[in-house]
Amino acid sequence: MKQNHTSAIDRFDLFTLVFDILISIVGGIIVNRLIPILKEKFIRAQLWGYDLNKRNSREVKIAESQGVIAAGIFLILMFIMIAIVFSEHLHPLSDFPHNKFIEYLAALLSICCMVLLGFADDVLDLRWSVKLMLPLIASLPLLLVYFANYHSTTIILPKPVRPLLGHQWNLGILYYVYMSMVSVFCTNAINILAGVNGLEVGQSIVIASSILMFNLIELQGSCSEEHLFSLYFMIPFIGCTFPILLRNWCPAQIFVGDTLCYFSGMTFAVVGILGHFSKTMLLFFIPQIANFLLSIPQLFHFIPCPRHRLPRLNPELNKLNPSEVEFKKKDLKPLGWLMLRFFSAIKFVRYREYKMHDNEVMIATTNFTIINTVLCWTGPLHEATLTRILLLIQIIFGTALPFFIRYYLVKFFYES
Amino acid sequence: MKQNHTSAIDRFDLFTLVFDILISIVGGIIVNRLIPILKEKFIRAQLWGYDLNKRNSREVKIAESQGVIAAGIFLILMFIMIAIVFSEHLHPLSDFPHNKFIEYLAALLSICCMVLLGFADDVLDLRWSVKLMLPLIASLPLLLVYFANYHSTTIILPKPVRPLLGHQWNLGILYYVYMSMVSVFCTNAINILAGVNGLEVGQSIVIASSILMFNLIELQGSCSEEHLFSLYFMIPFIGCTFPILLRNWCPAQIFVGDTLCYFSGMTFAVVGILGHFSKTMLLFFIPQIANFLLSIPQLFHFIPCPRHRLPRLNPELNKLNPSEVEFKKKDLKPLGWLMLRFFSAIKFVRYREYKMHDNEVMIATTNFTIINTVLCWTGPLHEATLTRILLLIQIIFGTALPFFIRYYLVKFFYES
Repeated sequence: MKQNHTSAIDRFDLFTLVFDILISIVGGIIVNRLIPILKEKFIRAQLWGYDLNKRNSREVKIAESQGVIAAGIFLILMFIMIAIVFSEHLHPLSDFPHNKFIEYLAALLSICCMVLLGFADDVLDLRWSVKLMLPLIASLPLLLVYFANYHSTTIILPKPVRPLLGHQWNLGILYYVYMSMVSVFCTNAINILAGVNGLEVGQSIVIASSILMFNLIELQGSCSEEHLFSLYFMIPFIGCTFPILLRNWCPAQIFVGDTLCYFSGMTFAVVGILGHFSKTMLLFFIPQIANFLLSIPQLFHFIPCPRHRLPRLNPELNKLNPSEVEFKKKDLKPLGWLMLRFFSAIKFVRYREYKMHDNEVMIATTNFTIINTVLCWTGPLHEATLTRILLLIQIIFGTALPFFIRYYLVKFFYES
Repeated sequence: MKQNHTSAIDRFDLFTLVFDILISIVGGIIVNRLIPILKEKFIRAQLWGYDLNKRNSREVKIAESQGVIAAGIFLILMFIMIAIVFSEHLHPLSDFPHNKFIEYLAALLSICCMVLLGFADDVLDLRWSVKLMLPLIASLPLLLVYFANYHSTTIILPKPVRPLLGHQWNLGILYYVYMSMVSVFCTNAINILAGVNGLEVGQSIVIASSILMFNLIELQGSCSEEHLFSLYFMIPFIGCTFPILLRNWCPAQIFVGDTLCYFSGMTFAVVGILGHFSKTMLLFFIPQIANFLLSIPQLFHFIPCPRHRLPRLNPELNKLNPSEVEFKKKDLKPLGWLMLRFFSAIKFVRYREYKMHDNEVMIATTNFTIINTVLCWTGPLHEATLTRILLLIQIIFGTALPFFIRYYLVKFFYES
């Protein structure tokens, strides 16, 4: 079974980290070079779209699914990294750390599967059920690895509830269900909070940076293999996706595609699960969780859900308004009505009723995403401003708040 | 380190095998169902082609890259299989066999990477250098696994050369170079012997069946984990690709794409390498090796290489003729001329010289593939007949001959 080394970071780990940073920079440069080279190939393969939120939207074909370039280079970098990380053990007398090695392999397998799924989704436009099912199957190796290396499914309960529920619970199989759910949630969460230039890749980079900072803090003084493991993934991730952010920033020259969303989601899920900080990692997803909860009425069709929920351009102002969906009031079921009233009461959506000429009462409500919520609060915004605000929200609620919870509030709930 | 169990196959292995067969059948049925369901999606995504060797070639759009459906279902089946294979160890007191587990993970990782590359190649039409480089990188985890579990790089030399060269050689790093080369060769070999309906997937199934038979023979009486490992991969492989063969058979309703060629090639490479029978496996590739050697003059541009080298339809007879490439005699370098004369002397190509009206001497030669060679020998053939002959060649030289070598001739070269 795995041993946690608590010694200080040794020279080899430091060398590996420096090497990781160097190849990540090289990887970023390669991604940056490849994007213009491959552009025509993507457009010829019908992987392109119009940017609906631009005045000249129908004039420029923008290459889609560019996330696959970042993901491909990321995978190559990680293959090289594996060889480096385990080069320490490449003499016959050394005892090869199989338990550590399976974590890298399972992590990359799950990520590679999700990149394949994402790219297939971009090309073929798959159904919702497939997108929910496949991360579940792709997380199977992860769960087995968790079992093989730790198989502890006991959680420590927070102090306030201990008098009622005891000190710890053994969740058993439920813990594995929880980890599967984390994979499914992460791979889809970023895809749901999307539709504005720079947002998908921007939030991914903010989350990756939060994880990176967290790992660095945890590594101070002691060498935790889990946090090194996570670092080895996060540094190339940031390296490979940064050029994507630069070119996807408003006005976008490229689109990232579902590939990038699944790729980043699964990468975060694997480091969270195998690095043993899935709870902390979910804190970095607070904005995505909020957006998911807000989306539930539309995702589960209590309220009609149009194909696209991204904001709508006001061409005169060149600013974005929240997009709306309209439907007959009588078609709304009681639960849908309750949800509409609730989210309207807490100001997350804005709706209005009006009468058609045949006296049919209609409802028009802003779509249930925090992108539209921000526009409800601020009024019309330029697209780049909207992205900046959304990324600021990510930094406040997905970075600052989690660190406050993790390092300050935690005292009231757990022993140090 | 890994122990070879030499006990008879136990009940659990038998249960696993039966389960493997059952899910492979289910997988085949699912692939068969998915093909017509997804057809429109592929055609809409521009993943289609004309069948150039049909009279009505420009009338029917045929969906391309259908190999990705087989590969996707195969990966899902294998994820389930991993869970079953290791379910034996799913109680906390059992010692989890990490060394066995990394083989499954590395194998699936390499296969998944190649499926991703193949699909990206079908969609984006990548360059040759990429196709050669990426299998090399994708085989890195395999090599590390080989190192971790065996790290023996000693080969036993055949009896006749022992007086000169000694009993055994330690190849050291060269052995790893050899294994990388096997991966690169296998992933590309099937792609080169292609272009006729049913041939790519047909030869893959023949090779898979040869491997399967070999594993079954080796398993008789003793339970070798390597051969069980290989069986667990080959059975779902045949299950998932069989429906592809049915629909890719002349006249093809679907095309398999590079995806299928890379997918099958890498699957064979991983079971050969991790199952420790890479030499025997290469025997199953004798027709592909012959085709590769024959292709060298064109692949390395000693002789001009047109984009497509598949046979050409004679529309009146509805039969295929060998395709030709024409060039000026004076452009041919001495080495190219030597190759042309050599392959013509052993009747693998047929060339003729003729004069243009400006007295320029031209050469027209059949293209350097065994598909065209067969047509040189037999004269014009119907496409289905050609595929049957090529698969017969695969069975004779890629199944029967290897078994003869492996179980009869081997006595003269090695101790039993």
